[in-house]
Amino acid sequence: MTAWALLLEYDGTPFVGWQRQAQGASVQGVLEGAAAKLNGGAPVACVAAGRTDAGVHASGQVVSLSLPDRHDADAVVGGLNFHMRPWPVAAVRAAPAAEGFSARFSAVGRAYRYVILDRAARPALDPRVWHVPHRLDADAMDQAAKRLLGRHDFTSFRAAACQANSPVRTLDRLDVSRDGDLVVVVAEARSFLHHQVRNMVGTLRLAGDGRWTADDVAAVLAARDRRAAGPTAPPGGLRLTGVRYPEDPFSRTPG
Amino acid sequence: MTAWALLLEYDGTPFVGWQRQAQGASVQGVLEGAAAKLNGGAPVACVAAGRTDAGVHASGQVVSLSLPDRHDADAVVGGLNFHMRPWPVAAVRAAPAAEGFSARFSAVGRAYRYVILDRAARPALDPRVWHVPHRLDADAMDQAAKRLLGRHDFTSFRAAACQANSPVRTLDRLDVSRDGDLVVVVAEARSFLHHQVRNMVGTLRLAGDGRWTADDVAAVLAARDRRAAGPTAPPGGLRLTGVRYPEDPFSRTPG
Repeated sequence: MTAWALLLEYDGTPFVGWQRQAQGASVQGVLEGAAAKLNGGAPVACVAAGRTDAGVHASGQVVSLSLPDRHDADAVVGGLNFHMRPWPVAAVRAAPAAEGFSARFSAVGRAYRYVILDRAARPALDPRVWHVPHRLDADAMDQAAKRLLGRHDFTSFRAAACQANSPVRTLDRLDVSRDGDLVVVVAEARSFLHHQVRNMVGTLRLAGDGRWTADDVAAVLAARDRRAAGPTAPPGGLRLTGVRYPEDPFSRTPG
Repeated sequence: MTAWALLLEYDGTPFVGWQRQAQGASVQGVLEGAAAKLNGGAPVACVAAGRTDAGVHASGQVVSLSLPDRHDADAVVGGLNFHMRPWPVAAVRAAPAAEGFSARFSAVGRAYRYVILDRAARPALDPRVWHVPHRLDADAMDQAAKRLLGRHDFTSFRAAACQANSPVRTLDRLDVSRDGDLVVVVAEARSFLHHQVRNMVGTLRLAGDGRWTADDVAAVLAARDRRAAGPTAPPGGLRLTGVRYPEDPFSRTPG
């Protein structure tokens, strides 16, 4: 068997999330089903860097899986894509993984992008946004975002269902910027708590509404209480855009 | 009646194009149907800056139309959007038009963007691209594109059905650049011939394939013969992104 690193893109809309659930289609289920076809029908386990929630998209998900030696990189990409049709999941690149590589445990950084469309009209071209029907103050959101940077106890932004041992995370980047009628939030950290990005965005939106100041947002963080923060932003505006490793698994020419 | 300038966004996929046809849904038909609802059922004529073809999208289409005086800008936007549901057309902004303004005849510039996805995997997130399943040389495409700039007889890139009096146009911008797995072509001119952008992109793609040099593309232009150029690129990768006027119709605070 050859261990592979796989770069995956998907539209999260029709899925219950990355992870298999008792009910409903999962990205993992679709990918593992296709991988089994390349493995003579025998099951193949796939491990993802980011276990995205129901409705959350990915343009840069990374997955590790093992397949029989007879496939080269083009055959892995082509074969998986063939068998994943018509689900909106695409294997973008595959590369033989270095010894001991795990898409999840070798990762040293994850990047997410959250997009808000802040105008009266609903989106006609790209529905993968959070539609807020009035103008937000993106500069105020960015100033509030800066108060969350660094190493903190993020209990205020953590889902009740979060299974992480510790609520302490180091937030390396949280930038809010305007692009026409879009407000774009970029978040980077080694790892995130469950719902952390969506809970931070739900809170920043209140700063964009003028209801909370940057000091209020800092106080939310300090409270270490989920009830202190804003509501969870909807999943459809969120996208996992990239995963960082000590060495880029896709930099070598695929074998 | 008040004359309005309207900024319109649409997904062209389900439409026969901007213009009404004997068969099928048109963007014009959907918009005029909604406008009639705001006019007590009486017909309203809408004139667009760019008569986009079947399957071509717009994020910056501009339309002129007249409505009864009782509506303000928010009511025009909200009312049109309400009545255009569930079609993927959104009225983004409305502003009272200056005396004599015509979205079509007052326009002094049109900007289009064409997006090619050049990788093996089909798109999972954004289907509004031309999927070319192998890598293109975007630099070679850009160099070839520069040979088309300026005032020329564009007969080689003109559809047989084109109704323009003259095949002479002035191409102000034709830039090709790479953005990850996307090749993005930006084209700007006062006006374009029918299919001109798609025919130029179909030709540049052959330069990106290494089949044609920049000199070959220059020779295609000089031939003034549609048969000399490459095939027409498919409509789904094309988007009208903006229209320029001597004065921005949306710069004033909507009345």
